[in-house]
Amino acid sequence: MITLSLIGIGTGNPDHLTRQAMRALNGADLILIPRKGAGKADLAELRRAIVAEVVSNPTTRIAEFDLPTRDAATADYRRRVDDWHEAIATVWTETIDRHLGPAGKVALLVWGDPSLYDSTLRIAARLSPAPQIEVIPGITSIQALTAAHAIPLNEINGPVVITTGRRLRDEGFPPGTDTCVVMLDGECSFQHLPPEGLSIWWAGFAGMPEQITESGPLAEATPRILARRAAARAVQGWIMDIYLLRRQ
Amino acid sequence: MITLSLIGIGTGNPDHLTRQAMRALNGADLILIPRKGAGKADLAELRRAIVAEVVSNPTTRIAEFDLPTRDAATADYRRRVDDWHEAIATVWTETIDRHLGPAGKVALLVWGDPSLYDSTLRIAARLSPAPQIEVIPGITSIQALTAAHAIPLNEINGPVVITTGRRLRDEGFPPGTDTCVVMLDGECSFQHLPPEGLSIWWAGFAGMPEQITESGPLAEATPRILARRAAARAVQGWIMDIYLLRRQ
Ligand SMILES: C[S@@+](CC[C@H](N)C(=O)[O-])C[C@H]1O[C@@H](n2cnc3c(N)ncnc32)[C@H](O)[C@@H]1O
Ligand SMILES: C[S@@+](CC[C@H](N)C(=O)[O-])C[C@H]1O[C@@H](n2cnc3c(N)ncnc32)[C@H](O)[C@@H]1O
Repeated sequence: MITLSLIGIGTGNPDHLTRQAMRALNGADLILIPRKGAGKADLAELRRAIVAEVVSNPTTRIAEFDLPTRDAATADYRRRVDDWHEAIATVWTETIDRHLGPAGKVALLVWGDPSLYDSTLRIAARLSPAPQIEVIPGITSIQALTAAHAIPLNEINGPVVITTGRRLRDEGFPPGTDTCVVMLDGECSFQHLPPEGLSIWWAGFAGMPEQITESGPLAEATPRILARRAAARAVQGWIMDIYLLRRQ
Repeated sequence: MITLSLIGIGTGNPDHLTRQAMRALNGADLILIPRKGAGKADLAELRRAIVAEVVSNPTTRIAEFDLPTRDAATADYRRRVDDWHEAIATVWTETIDRHLGPAGKVALLVWGDPSLYDSTLRIAARLSPAPQIEVIPGITSIQALTAAHAIPLNEINGPVVITTGRRLRDEGFPPGTDTCVVMLDGECSFQHLPPEGLSIWWAGFAGMPEQITESGPLAEATPRILARRAAARAVQGWIMDIYLLRRQ
C-alpha cells in the first residue's frame, strides 16, 4: 500500500515550511520532484533546496521526473486538462514503481497549500490502486499577500471572494462582497474594472526574497503596478502575482 | 521604537508552526499571552505550551494579561467592538510599558492567520505611538478543514466565498459561486438552507488532536453533524467548527 503525502510548502519562502511539513518530508521513503522545464526552473530548484536543507533521514530517496506538458492540439479545455492530469498520474505511477515498488510513503511538495488552485489532489485521485492520501496544509499566496501588506483579508464579519483573473475579466467585480482576492491572472485584469471606489493591494513574488508590493486607490495604483510588474518580470524572466481588491 | 510581530500559529496543532514563526518567537524580547478566562483556558494553555516548547532564547520575556471583555451594556454593535478594541490596545500598551519600556520586539501569537476574521491587526492600528507591524502568516482553519478531508477548496478555476454563519443565515447561499466556506457559526446555520444539490464537509477542532469530521449530501449529513457537534461540545466544554458547502 502506498501512502501519498501532499505537502504544502508555502509560496517560495523556505521558512513558510511548517513543522508538520518537515516531519512528513523526513518520514517519506520517496520524495518526487517535478521538473517543469527551463523557464520555471526556479521552482524545481526551490524544491530541491528545501529537501536538501530539511531532509536529514538518510533512507529518504529523491526522484525527479519531467512533468508532461498539455497537448495544445486538444481543442476542448476540459478534455485537455483531463488528458494532462492522466499523463501526470501515469508518470507518478512509473516513478513510484521504479524507485519504491508497491508499498511505502511517497511525498510531493505542493506550492502554497494543496487545496488552492492546484491540481495535485485531482491527479492523485486518478492513481490506481488508490493510495492513502494525506494532506499537510501550507501557507497560501493569499496569506503571503495579506502578510506582505499587514492587512486583514476581510472587513469586520464581511465575506471574501477568491477568484481568478479570467473571471474578473469576464464577470467583473464579484457580487455580494466588498473584498475579492484575484489569483491566476497573467494579464493584470484589474485594469479593465471601473476603478471608482476600489482600492488594490498587489504583491509579486509574495513571501519570497524578490517580493514587491504596491497598493492604493485602483485608478492611481494601476499604472504603478503595470510598470513595476513588467520591470520585475523582465529582470526575473517570470512572475507570480496576486492582489486584493476592496470597495471602500 | 516598538516592533510588533503578529505571529500566525495555525489552528491548534503546534506542528502548524512555520519556521518563520519559530524564528520570530525566538527573536522577540517580549511575548504577550492573553488570558480569556476559564472557559477558553485551552487556548492560553496552548499558547503557553507552544512558547515553552519553541522559545529557547533565554532573554525572551513572557507576559500574560487578562483580555478585557466586551461591554454588553453598549447597545450599538460597532461601538461595542470599537470600545473593546480600544480597551485591549490600552492593556497591550500597559503591559509593554511595564515589561519592556519604549523600545524592543514584541510578539503576539494569533490563532490561525492574522488576516482571517481576527481583530489583532485592527487593535494594533490603535496603538500610539504606532509600532512597526510585522505579520507572520499562519495556517488558517480553512486549510485545516480542507486538509482534514483531503479536498480541494475550489472547483477547477472556480471562485470561492468565505463567509460567516450569520450571513449564511440572513442571506442564504452566496451568489455567484458553487463553493462557500463558513466560519464563526455557533448555530450550525447550514441546517436552514434548502439542502437540494448541496454537499457539506464539516470539521470540529480541525488540525487538533480532538479533530472530528463529517461530510456528505447536506440533507443526509445535517443530523449527523448536529449530533456529533453536540456530543463533542459536551465532552470538551467548547467547540470551534468550520465547513465547506458545495453545489454539485
Ligand atoms: C496554480 S496557483 C497555486 C496557488 C497555491 N497553491 C497557493 O496556495 O497559493 C498559482 C497562483 O497563485 C498565486 N501565487 C502563488 N505563489 C505566489 C507568490 N509567491 N506571489 C504571488 N502570487 C503567488 C498567483 O496568483 C499564481 O497565479
Ligand atoms: C475568530 S475566527 C479566527 C480564525 C483564524 N484567524 C484562522 O485563521 O482560522 C474563529 C473561527 O475560525 C474557525 N476555526 C478556528 N480554528 C478552528 C479549528 N481548529 N477547527 C475548526 N474551526 C476553527 C471557526 O469557524 C471559528 O468560529
